[in-house]
This record gives sequence, C-alpha cells and structure tokens, in this order.
Amino acid sequence: MKIVTKIAELRKFLEAERSTGKSVGFVPTMGYLHDGHVALVREASKQCDVVVVSIFVNPTQFGPHEDFQAYPRNLQRDAKVCEREGVDYLFVPSEEEMYSSDFLTFVEVQELTGGLCGASRPGHFKGVTTVVAKLFNIVRPHKAFFGEKDAQQLLVVKKLVRDLNFDLEVVGVPAVREKDGLAMSSRNKYLDPKERKAAPVLFRSLSLANEKIAEGEREADKVKQAMKELLETEPLVTLEYLSICRTEDLKEIDKLSGDVLVALAARVGKARLIDNLFISLNN
Amino acid sequence: MKIVTKIAELRKFLEAERSTGKSVGFVPTMGYLHDGHVALVREASKQCDVVVVSIFVNPTQFGPHEDFQAYPRNLQRDAKVCEREGVDYLFVPSEEEMYSSDFLTFVEVQELTGGLCGASRPGHFKGVTTVVAKLFNIVRPHKAFFGEKDAQQLLVVKKLVRDLNFDLEVVGVPAVREKDGLAMSSRNKYLDPKERKAAPVLFRSLSLANEKIAEGEREADKVKQAMKELLETEPLVTLEYLSICRTEDLKEIDKLSGDVLVALAARVGKARLIDNLFISLNN
Repeated sequence: MKIVTKIAELRKFLEAERSTGKSVGFVPTMGYLHDGHVALVREASKQCDVVVVSIFVNPTQFGPHEDFQAYPRNLQRDAKVCEREGVDYLFVPSEEEMYSSDFLTFVEVQELTGGLCGASRPGHFKGVTTVVAKLFNIVRPHKAFFGEKDAQQLLVVKKLVRDLNFDLEVVGVPAVREKDGLAMSSRNKYLDPKERKAAPVLFRSLSLANEKIAEGEREADKVKQAMKELLETEPLVTLEYLSICRTEDLKEIDKLSGDVLVALAARVGKARLIDNLFISLNN
Repeated sequence: MKIVTKIAELRKFLEAERSTGKSVGFVPTMGYLHDGHVALVREASKQCDVVVVSIFVNPTQFGPHEDFQAYPRNLQRDAKVCEREGVDYLFVPSEEEMYSSDFLTFVEVQELTGGLCGASRPGHFKGVTTVVAKLFNIVRPHKAFFGEKDAQQLLVVKKLVRDLNFDLEVVGVPAVREKDGLAMSSRNKYLDPKERKAAPVLFRSLSLANEKIAEGEREADKVKQAMKELLETEPLVTLEYLSICRTEDLKEIDKLSGDVLVALAARVGKARLIDNLFISLNN
C-alpha cells in the first residue's frame, strides 16, 4: 500500500493504473476507521481492481461550534486497517494541500440539503459536496462507495454526480452495527459507558418503526409517535429530528408509500448520532 | 467532423481518442461563431490532437430579463465554420440533455464574481461555472480555451479549475477585433448601423488608457476620467461600469502596479458590450 499526501503524486499513480485498463474504486473517509468503513473498502475491492481510500477531516463541512478539533484521529491505526484490507493507495492530504489560502469555490446541492441534518447543520452539505467534488476530480474513480448510515449524504452525493455529470457510479453500502444495533460511527467514541448503553435506543426505535410498517401501519404520525415514546424511555438521548420522507427528494410524507426513508438524529452526551432505515413499499 | 447531441455518445468517442494517447482540446461556446471563436479553435488545434467545440446557449447564466430568447443562433453556419476549421467533434446538447427537470446543483466562485459583470448580472457567473463544470466532466479535456475578451469569466474559470482540482489547463486567447477595434462578439449583431459606428469608442477608450499608462500615469482615477470623457462623446453609448483592478482578485486599485485589468461594460442600443485590457507593470 502506498501512502500519498500530494495530489500530483496520487494523480500520477492512478493515471498509470487506469492506463493499463484497471478500474478504480474510491472510499472517501474522515478516518478513525471502523467496521462500517471496512465494509466500504471490501465492497470496493469486490467491484474494482484498484482501491483508493482518502482520509481527510474536511474543515468546510463542520460548523463553527462543531467538533472539527475534537474529531478523533489515528492515522497509524487507520493505515494498518487499510493495509490489512488490501487498500492500494491511502491518500492523506494536508489541509493546505486541499484548500489554498485563497480558496473561493463551492458546490451546492439545493433543496435536498435543507432538511434533516441540513437543517441542524447549516453549510454542512455544502462542505461535503465541495470536498467530494474535489476528491472526485483528484481520484477520477470509476466507482465511489458511501455508507447508507449517512443516508442524506448518500442521496446528496448521488444528485451531485448526476447533476454535474461526474463520470462515475456512486455505490451505497448498508450500515454496519454493533451487536446491540448501534450503527458504527467514529463519533461513538464520544460516548461514556452510560451513554453507550442508552444509544442503541436509536436502532430499537427504527426496528419498532419497521415492525409497525410491516404490520400495515401507513400513517407517518403514528409511526413517529411510537418511535418517540420508545426514545423517551432513555433520558440520556435527546431527539434532534425524526423524519419519514421520500428517498427521491427527502420531502416529509403523511402516508407511507413507495421508497421511504425513516431517519433520525439525536444528541447523546457530547455525541450527535444519526441512524436510518430505507423501506420500499408496494402498500 | 462528428456532430454529437448526447453526452453518453460524446463520452464514448472521447474515451476512445484518449485511450490512444491523444490530447483533447475543448472550446465551449454559445454558438453564433465569429472570428474570436475561430481563434480559440485554431489555438486548440495547435496545442491538442483532438478538438471539441460545444455550442450550448446556457439558460442558467442569463438573468430573467436578459437576452436568452433573443440570443442569436445559427447551427448550420456554425457547423460549417467548425468543419472548415478542422474541429473533430461538435457537441450540441439540448437543454433537456444538460438540465434534468429536477436539477439542483450549482457551482459558485465567491468574491471574484461579485464585481464588474457580476454586479450587474447577479447569478450570471454561477450559471457559467455550473455549466463549465458540467462540460469539463463530460469532455474531460486536457486543455480548455477561453477568450480574454471575457476577462472576468476567464479568471473565474481559472479559479474554478484550481479550487475544484479539475485536471486540465485553462488557456486564455486574446480578443479578436474588427478593423475599427470593436471586439468580436455574438451580441454585436444587435447593433443597428448608427450604434455599430459608435461602439468602437469602447476600444478607443481602452487604447487611450493604454497610452496614458505608457506615458507614466499611475493614478487609476485619472485614467478613468480620461476614458469617461472620451466615452461621453458617443451619446449612443451608456457606460455600465469602468474598472481598474488587480487581475489576481479583481479588487479595485487606486495606484496602478503589477498585473492590472482595465475593464468596462456599456449599453449600446439593445446590446450590452464588454471589453478590456490586460497590462503588466513594473512601475
């Protein structure tokens, strides 16, 4: 595995790979890799000849009072994980390499980014789509792999690719969970033991929604009410939003039908955690 | 020459060209080609193996009260010009091919786009950078050629390329002028004979600025004053802006030094015309 810090150097390596007809799979991350990232890497290895992982804690997607400074970092461990998983190139640019001091250009997906996490994290998705556009131009992958745990991000990146004609396929990979259902996230590190014990209620509330819907419930309000009641049994968990929306445009719905996303965000101690459920209904 | 209307088709052709090691030169236009465009095509032919010209009157760069509908179009004549100049691919997408009905993604270069033409045409450069990003992703050129006549556009596109890491070189090509100095522009078509006679005062005012500066004038206000007095001798010409700024960030300057842009826009009848002068000073 090659660890590369310079854009020009990575381009040279990948140009050579592509020129021999190899397909390039790309897994962009902010590091502190967990089994969710590993699932992305394994899917990339399965579908592509060459796998590139990037680690870059992107400052433009953090709000001024968010956890950019505190975000966990451990490059040495991450490099070992990538090496073990057969990653070919680990791209670890500095902030200066990615953003010149006179950086002025931003990419924005409108509407899709207004609700859910976009409502509580203004500017977040603008930072995501900007850095993803940059990374796509640097890596020029054939396929890029994103976790379904970050459902809105996945849908926003798919829209970015379609609208700006990036010549690549975005592949969504299902969330990986701890045994008690908690979705893997680098931010789980912020949880103290009591909070860690409370956090799986997010997954349990989604499972409850799944059951209700399987039993035939189609009123979004009733599904949400049941979820809220369950979430309220954990006083350490403060719900930020709970949404039942169409996956197509993330618009809230009253009656469940078609492709539906049940998504929530909650504060648990210092951590802001998100989780979700994709459901396809024929009613 | 192949005339291509579909993105997927163009990609297939260009993929084949690139795979044989050929370099791709790209000239994006809005059609109604004149000798300024021809100069871009010739420069592209000189520097690259394969030349792609696009013709697309991009709706997102026109304001609601601007001349999108009236903008002159003549594909048949344009195709002849391209054929004659040895263009390899003429890309003529429909509006639907470029913008799906649920299009939501925009690319914006901040600050550089606030002054000059950006001040009188809000949203214009956002439309330009969005369509240029799309076209770059579709064509994936090694070099893209833009006219220096649209000075701000050239600088904004260069910034777009640097900031978003597009892997290509932007080449600026000097304006081509009529015998009386009027810069070639598709919008010159809007001028009636009297207006056409008045319009070269734009170039004459820039030439006057050039003389004053060559004689040692370094006060921007004095250069501007002399230009304005000359421009006022033509009552058919209404000045929209007159700027003397640094090429680096388009910030207005009081004292001329370094790389300077003298730029102006004026209304002449129904036409909005722009022209400019790049000057490098060692003082």
